[in-house]
Amino acid sequence: MIGKLEAGELIAAERARREVSWREISEAIDKPLLWTIAALLGQHPVGREDAEKVADLLDLDQATVDALRRQPYRGTTEVVPTDPTVYRFYEVLQVYGGAIKEAIHEEFGDGIMSAINFKIDVERRLDPEGDRVVVTLDGKFLDYRW
Amino acid sequence: MIGKLEAGELIAAERARREVSWREISEAIDKPLLWTIAALLGQHPVGREDAEKVADLLDLDQATVDALRRQPYRGTTEVVPTDPTVYRFYEVLQVYGGAIKEAIHEEFGDGIMSAINFKIDVERRLDPEGDRVVVTLDGKFLDYRW
Amino acid sequence: MIGKLEAGELIAAERARREVSWREISEAIDKPLLWTIAALLGQHPVGREDAEKVADLLDLDQATVDALRRQPYRGTTEVVPTDPTVYRFYEVLQVYGGAIKEAIHEEFGDGIMSAINFKIDVERRLDPEGDRVVVTLDGKFLDYRW
Amino acid sequence: MIGKLEAGELIAAERARREVSWREISEAIDKPLLWTIAALLGQHPVGREDAEKVADLLDLDQATVDALRRQPYRGTTEVVPTDPTVYRFYEVLQVYGGAIKEAIHEEFGDGIMSAINFKIDVERRLDPEGDRVVVTLDGKFLDYRW
Amino acid sequence: MIGKLEAGELIAAERARREVSWREISEAIDKPLLWTIAALLGQHPVGREDAEKVADLLDLDQATVDALRRQPYRGTTEVVPTDPTVYRFYEVLQVYGGAIKEAIHEEFGDGIMSAINFKIDVERRLDPEGDRVVVTLDGKFLDYRW
Amino acid sequence: MIGKLEAGELIAAERARREVSWREISEAIDKPLLWTIAALLGQHPVGREDAEKVADLLDLDQATVDALRRQPYRGTTEVVPTDPTVYRFYEVLQVYGGAIKEAIHEEFGDGIMSAINFKIDVERRLDPEGDRVVVTLDGKFLDYRW
Amino acid sequence: MIGKLEAGELIAAERARREVSWREISEAIDKPLLWTIAALLGQHPVGREDAEKVADLLDLDQATVDALRRQPYRGTTEVVPTDPTVYRFYEVLQVYGGAIKEAIHEEFGDGIMSAINFKIDVERRLDPEGDRVVVTLDGKFLDYRW
Amino acid sequence: MIGKLEAGELIAAERARREVSWREISEAIDKPLLWTIAALLGQHPVGREDAEKVADLLDLDQATVDALRRQPYRGTTEVVPTDPTVYRFYEVLQVYGGAIKEAIHEEFGDGIMSAINFKIDVERRLDPEGDRVVVTLDGKFLDYRW
Amino acid sequence: MIGKLEAGELIAAERARREVSWREISEAIDKPLLWTIAALLGQHPVGREDAEKVADLLDLDQATVDALRRQPYRGTTEVVPTDPTVYRFYEVLQVYGGAIKEAIHEEFGDGIMSAINFKIDVERRLDPEGDRVVVTLDGKFLDYRW
Amino acid sequence: MIGKLEAGELIAAERARREVSWREISEAIDKPLLWTIAALLGQHPVGREDAEKVADLLDLDQATVDALRRQPYRGTTEVVPTDPTVYRFYEVLQVYGGAIKEAIHEEFGDGIMSAINFKIDVERRLDPEGDRVVVTLDGKFLDYRW
Repeated sequence: MIGKLEAGELIAAERARREVSWREISEAIDKPLLWTIAALLGQHPVGREDAEKVADLLDLDQATVDALRRQPYRGTTEVVPTDPTVYRFYEVLQVYGGAIKEAIHEEFGDGIMSAINFKIDVERRLDPEGDRVVVTLDGKFLDYRW
Repeated sequence: MIGKLEAGELIAAERARREVSWREISEAIDKPLLWTIAALLGQHPVGREDAEKVADLLDLDQATVDALRRQPYRGTTEVVPTDPTVYRFYEVLQVYGGAIKEAIHEEFGDGIMSAINFKIDVERRLDPEGDRVVVTLDGKFLDYRW
Repeated sequence: MIGKLEAGELIAAERARREVSWREISEAIDKPLLWTIAALLGQHPVGREDAEKVADLLDLDQATVDALRRQPYRGTTEVVPTDPTVYRFYEVLQVYGGAIKEAIHEEFGDGIMSAINFKIDVERRLDPEGDRVVVTLDGKFLDYRW
Repeated sequence: MIGKLEAGELIAAERARREVSWREISEAIDKPLLWTIAALLGQHPVGREDAEKVADLLDLDQATVDALRRQPYRGTTEVVPTDPTVYRFYEVLQVYGGAIKEAIHEEFGDGIMSAINFKIDVERRLDPEGDRVVVTLDGKFLDYRW
Repeated sequence: MIGKLEAGELIAAERARREVSWREISEAIDKPLLWTIAALLGQHPVGREDAEKVADLLDLDQATVDALRRQPYRGTTEVVPTDPTVYRFYEVLQVYGGAIKEAIHEEFGDGIMSAINFKIDVERRLDPEGDRVVVTLDGKFLDYRW
Repeated sequence: MIGKLEAGELIAAERARREVSWREISEAIDKPLLWTIAALLGQHPVGREDAEKVADLLDLDQATVDALRRQPYRGTTEVVPTDPTVYRFYEVLQVYGGAIKEAIHEEFGDGIMSAINFKIDVERRLDPEGDRVVVTLDGKFLDYRW
Repeated sequence: MIGKLEAGELIAAERARREVSWREISEAIDKPLLWTIAALLGQHPVGREDAEKVADLLDLDQATVDALRRQPYRGTTEVVPTDPTVYRFYEVLQVYGGAIKEAIHEEFGDGIMSAINFKIDVERRLDPEGDRVVVTLDGKFLDYRW
Repeated sequence: MIGKLEAGELIAAERARREVSWREISEAIDKPLLWTIAALLGQHPVGREDAEKVADLLDLDQATVDALRRQPYRGTTEVVPTDPTVYRFYEVLQVYGGAIKEAIHEEFGDGIMSAINFKIDVERRLDPEGDRVVVTLDGKFLDYRW
Repeated sequence: MIGKLEAGELIAAERARREVSWREISEAIDKPLLWTIAALLGQHPVGREDAEKVADLLDLDQATVDALRRQPYRGTTEVVPTDPTVYRFYEVLQVYGGAIKEAIHEEFGDGIMSAINFKIDVERRLDPEGDRVVVTLDGKFLDYRW
Repeated sequence: MIGKLEAGELIAAERARREVSWREISEAIDKPLLWTIAALLGQHPVGREDAEKVADLLDLDQATVDALRRQPYRGTTEVVPTDPTVYRFYEVLQVYGGAIKEAIHEEFGDGIMSAINFKIDVERRLDPEGDRVVVTLDGKFLDYRW
C-alpha cells in the first residue's frame, strides 16, 4: 500500500521522465487541466476508469492506481510555502487578503467564495512587455445563513 | 503618529459608519477598486492628492493622512488566516498550490507569477445556480534567469 | 473607535454585572441563542435595530454600537484553545475528526459540511446519571463540484 | 510490529479497495458507526473478538489485529487540520467556541461537556434546498467541583 | 472594566506589598489554599461574598471585584512555561507523561483523571536531607464510555 | 541498533500482546512501578541485570537490551500533548501552574520542586461517587542559592 | 521613556513627513548609509553627538535621543518576514543558503562570514533591461578555531 | 525514484569522498559556481547534458540523474537555520532587513529586488586584518506596478 | 502598579542615561555583578534594603521599588533569541548541547547541573590575539534519585 | 551513505556498548574532550587520521568514517530542548541571557562572544555540600565594526 502523496510524487517524476505533459494526460481522461494535476498529485479522488487510463499512459502499478482512487486527506504539511512559485500566492494573500474580503462583502454581502463548488484555471496572456500568468479562481458565493 | 494598519482600521470603520462604499472611494480617486481597498488598509503607499481626497470624503485628520502616505511594511501578523472569507483562499493554496506550480512550469517553463507587477480583481458572475465570486490574479511571468 | 472583540468583552462583562442572561438578550432581539452570543462577542455583524436594542438593554455607548454593526474579521488568535470548556471540542476534533470525515464521505460522497450555511445549538438533556450537554451542528452538505 | 495509525491507514485503504462500507463493518461488530470508524483508525482500543471479526472481513494479518487491540495514544500530529472536510469543524470552533462556552455556563453553570463520557453521530437530514450534515455531540456535563 | 488576569496581577502585587499571605486570604474566605490562589489569579469565578471579603482585606476597587466574579477564560498564553518553578511540572509531564498514562490504564482501564472534578494540594514534607515539595493531584477517574 | 523510544514501543506492544502487567515487570526487577514504566518507555537508563530480566520476561533481543541500558535523551517531541489522558495534566498546569508557584514560594521561599531528586506515584482511591486517580509528585525543594 | 524600536518608527515617520532622505541624514552625521538607517531604526547604538545632530534635523525630543543612544536588543519579533521587499532576502536564504555555505567552506575552509565585523551596501546598477539592486555583504572570515 | 534533496545529499557526500571541488564541477559544465552548487543540491533543474556530465564525474546512477533534471520544489523545511554559517545570513536579515528595505525604496521607489532574475556570488577579498567573505546579491529591481 | 520587566527596562534606561555602571550598582548593594544585573532586569526578587539603595542611586519611584521586591515570573517570551550577543549562547547550545550532556554523564553519572543552586560569571581574559569573554557556569550536580 | 547525525548515534551507542569512555577516545586522537564528543556526534568535521583511529577503536565501517569526515550542517532540529540535562542550559539563557549581554557590553563595549573562535570545557569541582558542574565558555570578543 502506498499513500496518495507518495503516488503523486511517483506520477510527477514518471511524467517528467517520459516527457508526457499534464495537458496530454488531462486530454486523455477528458478532464480540466488544473483538476487533473491536482487529482494526480493526490488532492482529489480519481475514478476507476480515469485512474486506469493514467496507469496505461505512465505504466503505473496497481498500488498506485488504488492510491489514486482513494479519498484524499487534502492539503500539505507546509504552513508557509517555501517554493517561490507557490509562495507568491501566499504573498498575494498577505497583501491583498483583507482587500479581497472587503470587496466580496461590498459586492455580495456577508459570506465567502466557496473553495468546494469551485474551479481554477491558469492561462498565458500574451503581452509585449512580457507574457502574463492569469489565474482565475471561480467559486460559488455562499452567504452566511443560519 | 499612528501606524498604517491602525489608520486602515480607522478608515474601514469610518467608511462603514458613514455608509460610503469602497467603490465610491475608488472612483473619487480614480484608482482600481482592489488597489484602493488594499492601499487604504495599509498595504500600499497613497499619493498626497489621493490621500487628501480620501481625507475629505471621510473627514480624516492629518496623522491619518501622513500614515496613508508612508511606505508600508506589507503583510499581516497572521500566519494562517482565521477569518472564513480569507481562509478559503489559503485553502485553495493548500489544495491547488502544487497544481498551479506544475501548470505554470508546463506553460511557461521554470519561473513564477510576479506578485509585484501584478493586479487582482474580484467580480460577480451571475449564475442561476447561485452567483459566483470570480477572482482574477494577473501577474507578469518571470523566468529564473541568472 | 473600539474593535469588535473589545466590544464583545465589554458586553460580556456588562451582561454579567447586570445579571442579564444571554437568553433574555436573544429574546429581546428575537434571534437564536447561539447566533446572538456569537454576534455580540464579535463574530457576526449585527443589524442596526438589533444593535440599538442591545445597547438599550445594557446601556452601551455609540462606539460599541458601531462596533457591533461592523463586518467582523472572524476567529480568534488562539491556535489551540486553553480554556477547558472550549478545549474539549478541540479534543473531539483530534479524536473523532478522521471518523467524521469518513462518515460524511460514506454518506454523502466527496464534500464537506458548510460552516457558512450553518446553525448550531446547545441543549440540556436530562439524564438520571447526570445531565448531558448536547451540541448540534447543522450545515448544508457541499459536494466537490468543479 | 506496526503502530495503530499505520494499522488505521491500512484498514481504510483495504476497506476502500474491497468496497466494504464502514457501516457494514460497524454492523458486523454491532457497534455505533462513529465509534467503529474512530476505533479502526486507531483512536480506541478494539476488543479481541471485534478485532478478529474485522480481520476476517478485510483479511488483515495478526500484527494489524494486535495493533487494533492496543491502547491508543489518541490525537493527531496536526495542530490546525488542512483537510477542508475536517477544517470546517475547526472553523466552527474559531467562530462559535466562545458562544458555546457562554451557552454551557448559562445553562449548566461553571463546567464542561465531557469528551470522555461522550458519543457523537453524523446524520443526513433531507432538505429541498440541499441535504444537510447534522453532527450531534453528546457529552455528560461535568461541573467544576473541588 | 478590567480583565481577570489583570485583576489577578493587581491582587498578587497588592498582597505582596501589604504582606498578606495567601493562606490568610484563604482562611478569611474559608476556601482551600490552592483553590483560593488559582481563583484570585483569575482561573475560577469567585462568589460575591468572597470577592467582597478579599476586596476588604486588600482594599480593591469595584472593577476588580467585578472581574473576580466573572466566569474565566482559563489557561495562559504560554505554551511552554519559562519560569523554572512552573517548568519543572512541564518537565515531569515530558519525562513521566507516558508512564502516568500507562499506570492509569493498567489500574483503571481506558480513561482519564478528571481535571474538573479535581483538587490539588501543595505540602511541605520535612526531610533531614532537605524538605520536600509534595503536590497531590486528586481527580475522579472517568472511563471512556459511549 | 535501535533507539530507546523505538525499544519502548516494542516493549509496550509486546507487554500488551503477552498480557504481562507493568506491575509484574516492576516486581520482577524490584523497582517502583512508575519508575519501571518510565524507564522501559525510554526515559531512564536501565541497569544490566534489570534489562536482562525484562528481556527474559518479554523475550527481547540484544539490540533492545542495549537500547534499554543506554543513557536517554529524555522528553518527547510533542509540545502540547494530544492524548486526553496526558492532556489533562497539561491542563492542570495551564489552570493551576500559577497557583502552585505561589504556594511553593509562600511555603518554602524562592525556589523550585526538583524534578530530578523526585518520585511520582499513581494510586486508586476508592470513593462511592466514583474512584479517584491520585497522583503524588514528591520532589526535593531547591532554593535559589548563588 | 520610549523604546528604541518605537523611536525608530517615529524617526522613519518624521523623516518621510519632512521629506528628508536617509542619505541626507547619513551625510549630516558622516556615516555610511546602511549603518545610519539601521542605527536610526534601533539596531545600533548612536553616539551622543550624532544623536543630537539627527534630533536637530528632525526636531526630536530628548526621550528619543536617549533611546537612540542606548545599546539595542537587536533583531525583530518576526520569524519569517511578510513584507515582499524583505521576504526576497529570506527566499534567497531558502534557495541559496546551502550553496553559500558550501562555497564558503570550499574557498576558506570550515568557518563563517562574520555578521559583526561586517558591512553591507545597497547600490543601483544601471542596466538597459532594467536597473538592478546590488547588495554587497562583506564580513570577515572566521574559522572554527578551538 | 529518489527525491532531489536526497540526490543533493548523495552528490555532496560523493563529491567530498572523491575530493572533487564544486569549482571543478562548475567548470566541467561551464556554469557559474553558485548556480552549480545550488542546482546540484536540488534547488534548480539541471539540463540533460549537464546532468550527465556530473554523473560521469561522480559516477552517479540514472535515478540521481533523473532527480537532477526534475523541476524542484525549492526551499528547505527549516524556518530558522541552525547552522552557524547559514545563520549569520539570517542574522543579517534580522539586523539589517529594515535598513535594506528603506535603502531600496529611497533609491528605486516602491518595489523589490527580484530573487528570480537574480544572481549571487561569493568571493574572497584579501585583507591584512583577516580575509573577508564578500557575498554579492544582484537582482533586477521590480517596481510595484498594477 | 508596574511589572517587573517594565521596571527592568526603566532601570536599564535610567542607568544608561545617568552613566551609572552595573558594577557600581552591584558594589553599592554588595552583591555579585551578574546576580545584580539579572535581579534588576526582573529575574530575581530584590530585598527591601537593596531595592531602596538602588532607588536612591537612580532616583526610582515607589512603584518601581515594589516591582523589584516582588517574586518574578522568570524567563522571557522569546523562544529563539534574535539579539546576536544573546544568540551566540543559544548557538553554543545547538552545537555543544549534546556534548555537554555526554560529558556530564561520563564524569558524574545520570543527572544535571542545577540552574537553581547556581552562579554565573563573565570575565575578560587578556589575550594578544584579541581579548576573550569567559563565561563560567557553576551549578551543583544533581543526580537522578528516586 | 549515512548522515553525520546517524553516524553520531551509532558511535554513541557503540561506545556505550563497548564501555569505551569519551575521554579514552579523546586521548586516542589527542583532542580536547568536548571537541571530541561534539565532533563524533556530528558537529565538527573530523580529519582522516582521527576518523580512522576512532574507527579502529569502535570497529566502525567505511560509511561511518566518510560521514565523520564530511563538513557538518551544525545544530539540531529541536528549538527548545526537552532533555533536562540540556534544558538547564536553555533555562540559564532564559534567566541570565539579558544579564550576560549587559555584562559583556559594560566590560567590552558593543559586541559579542564568538561561538566560532571558541572553546568549552566541563569540569567537576569538589564541594563538601555536593560536587559542582563547572562549564567554562571561552570565546574571543568581537566588537561591532563596520
